[in-house]
Amino acid sequence: MSLDNFVRKWIPSWIREEGPESDVVLSSRVRLARNFVDLPFPHLASDTALREVIKRLKNAVEVIKNHPPYQDLQLNPLNEMSGLDRLILVEKHLVSPQFIENFRDRAVILNGSETISIMINEEDHLRIQCFSPGLELQKAWEEVNRLDDLLEEKLHFAFLEDKGYLTACPTNAGTGMRASVMVHLPALAMTKQIGKVVNNVAKFGLTVRGLYGEGTEAFGNIFQISNQITLGLKEEEIIDNLYRVTKHVIEQERTMREGIMTHGKEGLLNKVGRAYGTLKYAHIISSQEAMTHLSDLRLGAALNLYPQVSKQAIDELIILIAPAFLQKIMGQELGPEERDLKRAELIREKLS
Amino acid sequence: MSLDNFVRKWIPSWIREEGPESDVVLSSRVRLARNFVDLPFPHLASDTALREVIKRLKNAVEVIKNHPPYQDLQLNPLNEMSGLDRLILVEKHLVSPQFIENFRDRAVILNGSETISIMINEEDHLRIQCFSPGLELQKAWEEVNRLDDLLEEKLHFAFLEDKGYLTACPTNAGTGMRASVMVHLPALAMTKQIGKVVNNVAKFGLTVRGLYGEGTEAFGNIFQISNQITLGLKEEEIIDNLYRVTKHVIEQERTMREGIMTHGKEGLLNKVGRAYGTLKYAHIISSQEAMTHLSDLRLGAALNLYPQVSKQAIDELIILIAPAFLQKIMGQELGPEERDLKRAELIREKLS
Repeated sequence: MSLDNFVRKWIPSWIREEGPESDVVLSSRVRLARNFVDLPFPHLASDTALREVIKRLKNAVEVIKNHPPYQDLQLNPLNEMSGLDRLILVEKHLVSPQFIENFRDRAVILNGSETISIMINEEDHLRIQCFSPGLELQKAWEEVNRLDDLLEEKLHFAFLEDKGYLTACPTNAGTGMRASVMVHLPALAMTKQIGKVVNNVAKFGLTVRGLYGEGTEAFGNIFQISNQITLGLKEEEIIDNLYRVTKHVIEQERTMREGIMTHGKEGLLNKVGRAYGTLKYAHIISSQEAMTHLSDLRLGAALNLYPQVSKQAIDELIILIAPAFLQKIMGQELGPEERDLKRAELIREKLS
Repeated sequence: MSLDNFVRKWIPSWIREEGPESDVVLSSRVRLARNFVDLPFPHLASDTALREVIKRLKNAVEVIKNHPPYQDLQLNPLNEMSGLDRLILVEKHLVSPQFIENFRDRAVILNGSETISIMINEEDHLRIQCFSPGLELQKAWEEVNRLDDLLEEKLHFAFLEDKGYLTACPTNAGTGMRASVMVHLPALAMTKQIGKVVNNVAKFGLTVRGLYGEGTEAFGNIFQISNQITLGLKEEEIIDNLYRVTKHVIEQERTMREGIMTHGKEGLLNKVGRAYGTLKYAHIISSQEAMTHLSDLRLGAALNLYPQVSKQAIDELIILIAPAFLQKIMGQELGPEERDLKRAELIREKLS
């Protein structure tokens, strides 16, 4: 398979495509936590109960598949997937790293374009997620809401009139909603403003996390901003709050970029050029080093600086160079040293 | 002036052209120290005596110019040259750094192709030098010998039957000869063998120095190997000894290169590729960093590794990126920060 075909087949469209504010925002996601009223939360549930959850979802999917655009929804038990394919789910941000740590009695429901991903038996029975490219929280919210409504027609979720949805961890109770945006903040990072951004964002009940969510590092200056508070607010208020604050962060990042363009353009051209030269000609590269250069290159692309590489190609590379994805492309298991060789080969091919 | 024309006009042919063993040897040089019998050595001489030296050489040049191929010999008083042009003489290796520290009553005789350079009133009254590309010590020796013979027909040099030529510093007495080869030893440097080479070479009465001679650093893994002993040996013996030892060092370097190609080819491709990518796309680069990358690139060129850049282009760049040369090309005085910008620009142009 050619690299282009592989990318089309394996990388979700919401990662490949550009959405609104794509100079700073890679993607938006809205997730709803739901639990069956008559079954214990997964960490307390018996194997039988966990299997019952999967069974109910299997049946629900069969019904929902009659409603366009859900024809291609599919439930995939984790234990029927290869270890590599499970890791790839994480690298595509479709499931949490915690979700694949234990893959017995767990399953993920995906649609063909992978804009929908429902984790079954993660921390909650259901974690219904919808993804959108760029800053499109409203769209992601509407889609996840519609899907949730359809599911609720068939399934009885634990809900209290005064508290809202019940969840395994009380921090998710109420709306059960976690909305997040994945943002690229290289200029704020360069000027050492990330700490300030994190503090400001926290004042609005939001939090900043790394590339793969909670407890992960921010490789390549990519951060996730998401709501902390799920209780006492309406879903629309959470979305609106995150949208406004993200817009503000976008403006801060753009202001910093303009500042660097005005006062340090040569240094920026140097950084972007060296990043490109290294990626284009290295024969051995770690994923961390590659992410650092891709971040510089993405900033260059957003500012239309030479050398020109499309943001799309860069965003695809960010996914492609992750360890499991890389092995999928190469069609073989690779040790860490082999990965560093193959990663460089892949990047050279992509940038050629 | 285009860069190509500038290079043809300003870089001596013996630097631009490839000679024997050019994978390791950049150039060969033979220098003879001569002093007038009736005048004090320069460091003891009065201004009048120094001027007398220059006057005698001026007259001698006029006579020698009648003998082909010396028609285009020309005497250039240092104080009539710009500071930049004096520095460029050093960067072209035509004169020593010490020679231009004081430029009163000093002059340099050059031919058109700059294969001949006679320093007047450096440590000795005359330092007659001939240069050749690659490992061509014999040719350089024959040329400097012929020129010396012509000069001796007109001038009376201090010479004792039992001691040979007298020189300001006794270490040069006897033949007054210093023969040297400029070698590129990246593989020996990579494998930390330079110290061993220096020790071995010393056993044969030879010494290893940096890029611009005595007391200078070996940027870009370029070293000068030259004879220490000038007394008690015939000129041909000195040349022969240096030639044999250099041949041995060349073999050691080539063996190391083969070893790296066998056991560390990916690492080498990585080094060469990154060097190329950085040089081709950087916007700010110091001369030291550029030399390091050019050294890697020259090794790649010698081993026919991708990306292909000609040794000639690299050897020209090694000269072009030096501070004074860079300012000459750009046609303006440049501070250190401006030089790092313009150097990167020049390298990008040359590699494009």
